[in-house]
Amino acid sequence: MPQFRRDPLSDHWVILAPNRSERPEQWGINDERKPSFRCPFCRGNEADTPSPLAALSAAGESCSDADWQVRVIPNKYPAVRQDAPQPPDTRPFFDAKPGYGIHEVIIETPDHEDRFTNLEDRQISLVFQAYRQRLLACAEQSGLAYAQIFKNSGAAAGASLEHAHSQLIATPVVPTQVQRELDIALGYYEENHRCVFCDMLIEELSEGSRILLETDRFVAFCPFASQFPYETWIIPREHHSKFEDTEDIAISELARLVRSVLLRVEATLQDPAFNYLIHTSPLRSRPLTHYHWHLELFPRVNKTAGFEWGSGDYINTVAPEQAARALRNAQASGS
Amino acid sequence: MPQFRRDPLSDHWVILAPNRSERPEQWGINDERKPSFRCPFCRGNEADTPSPLAALSAAGESCSDADWQVRVIPNKYPAVRQDAPQPPDTRPFFDAKPGYGIHEVIIETPDHEDRFTNLEDRQISLVFQAYRQRLLACAEQSGLAYAQIFKNSGAAAGASLEHAHSQLIATPVVPTQVQRELDIALGYYEENHRCVFCDMLIEELSEGSRILLETDRFVAFCPFASQFPYETWIIPREHHSKFEDTEDIAISELARLVRSVLLRVEATLQDPAFNYLIHTSPLRSRPLTHYHWHLELFPRVNKTAGFEWGSGDYINTVAPEQAARALRNAQASGS
Repeated sequence: MPQFRRDPLSDHWVILAPNRSERPEQWGINDERKPSFRCPFCRGNEADTPSPLAALSAAGESCSDADWQVRVIPNKYPAVRQDAPQPPDTRPFFDAKPGYGIHEVIIETPDHEDRFTNLEDRQISLVFQAYRQRLLACAEQSGLAYAQIFKNSGAAAGASLEHAHSQLIATPVVPTQVQRELDIALGYYEENHRCVFCDMLIEELSEGSRILLETDRFVAFCPFASQFPYETWIIPREHHSKFEDTEDIAISELARLVRSVLLRVEATLQDPAFNYLIHTSPLRSRPLTHYHWHLELFPRVNKTAGFEWGSGDYINTVAPEQAARALRNAQASGS
Repeated sequence: MPQFRRDPLSDHWVILAPNRSERPEQWGINDERKPSFRCPFCRGNEADTPSPLAALSAAGESCSDADWQVRVIPNKYPAVRQDAPQPPDTRPFFDAKPGYGIHEVIIETPDHEDRFTNLEDRQISLVFQAYRQRLLACAEQSGLAYAQIFKNSGAAAGASLEHAHSQLIATPVVPTQVQRELDIALGYYEENHRCVFCDMLIEELSEGSRILLETDRFVAFCPFASQFPYETWIIPREHHSKFEDTEDIAISELARLVRSVLLRVEATLQDPAFNYLIHTSPLRSRPLTHYHWHLELFPRVNKTAGFEWGSGDYINTVAPEQAARALRNAQASGS
């Protein structure tokens, strides 16, 4: 059963989840390649999964399993669980807590053959509506501090199944990196009485060379200190700390923009695996003047190596100015 | 030309090194597979590289290119350089510094066919002697704060060439993760008047379930909060803050132990790619009562995914107690 364990030398949490080693793809064995594989995410196979936590119709309304366009289910191999037991008594250096939490899968289309970037804009809108709905549902649950939404696309990005999906992991602790961003943003606010993200966006727009695409409500850009080649952030122009406060019209615009960025990444890099994730405020926090939600996206074109694991710092072989230029110029077929 | 860029939202440094995108293996193109490939690390091809920075004979002494057993050369695609120019004037949010530093390759054997784990113990001793020598040489250079030694073995671990080698990157800044470990260790020392690593080792030895191998001078164990499956640390029993103070007899013992651990990892996991790295004190620091050098080693058996990149926290699917048991029981052929 899962545990949180605190590393006394880095202050990071590790989620120990031995049951996840039973996932079919683990250690390179991919059951999907077998002719007998039956995808639990496909329309018609709903009985292979537990009851859905949510199902959205084409109109974005709750619906039955007969009509779903986006379906949310519990992860079969959860990293965290609501019934995680208390670990044995802890001792100095061996600080553990129950691996309590929620781990959900957002199935992005009923059709196994649909690639995420080939979905219609309104289908991707439904996916982002589902994120919003699940964040609001997590905020109703006691004992949860944060919900991380992320998408792994392709084996090199950590996906275990091909059928387009994303995930939500909600935990009683705010993740290390999110807490660090919150702390730095609060420090900046206390000093400058301004949101650090709003100010960074002003500077990026003024400088211009790393801007990829602009819409009425959002800006996509390759950050000055990108960790990865072609790393792209999408951030609302207006100050909003909570993704789940995003209105339908903005969700639609975001969906179009995410797809447009991904089509350009695919055209530039020959269909790389990719991840995206949403950084938003902790669950149940009031709107924060110092924090600003955003989406981070990056293709998986290089391997992290010993230097990165030892130093915690990244070597990026593509300047973000060059990445933004390449993505701006990309002929994104279908966009 | 390389730059350090500071991310204002995480306080991490990124090394921007566009020239490294010219490495032959980048984007999956591996020149080594071509019949025409001529390995610059092989004996006989010394003229294909710049003059060596060091060359060690079988006796561990400086030698000519005719007799080398371990040879250290500048990296052809350096992440950092001694002639890195000043970046243009920086502005708020766009904080950059010259990508100054040293990037070396330690060629671990003259023979292309030698796998690291098939090298004789005394050959691996020479490799660790070369690390010690290069750390001492870096300490003589002005403007460098830290030297990170690491090994990437296998493409999944970030290696670009098959010929057994490790690397050293020395930089004017102490890497984020090392500085964090130093800060936490100092805080512990100020509170307890003890080294946190010494105390952790006492607790791990007393608990026992995560201990893998013990020698006179070293302990190999899978840490309580391992980030990765089969992560193993090797740490000297006695308090030593600087790897480069390690004496010959201890280097020999360390070499045997590293090889024994790696043979067990290979036997357990069917020859995985792996990384190891050495965490030691900053260059030119006096011996530190609060810090304790150690080697961290991990096979690359799983992919980091959106959750890890977004949270900074890791999901580990193999309990370190289970990993230590499996590695203890492994029939390490040749060990």
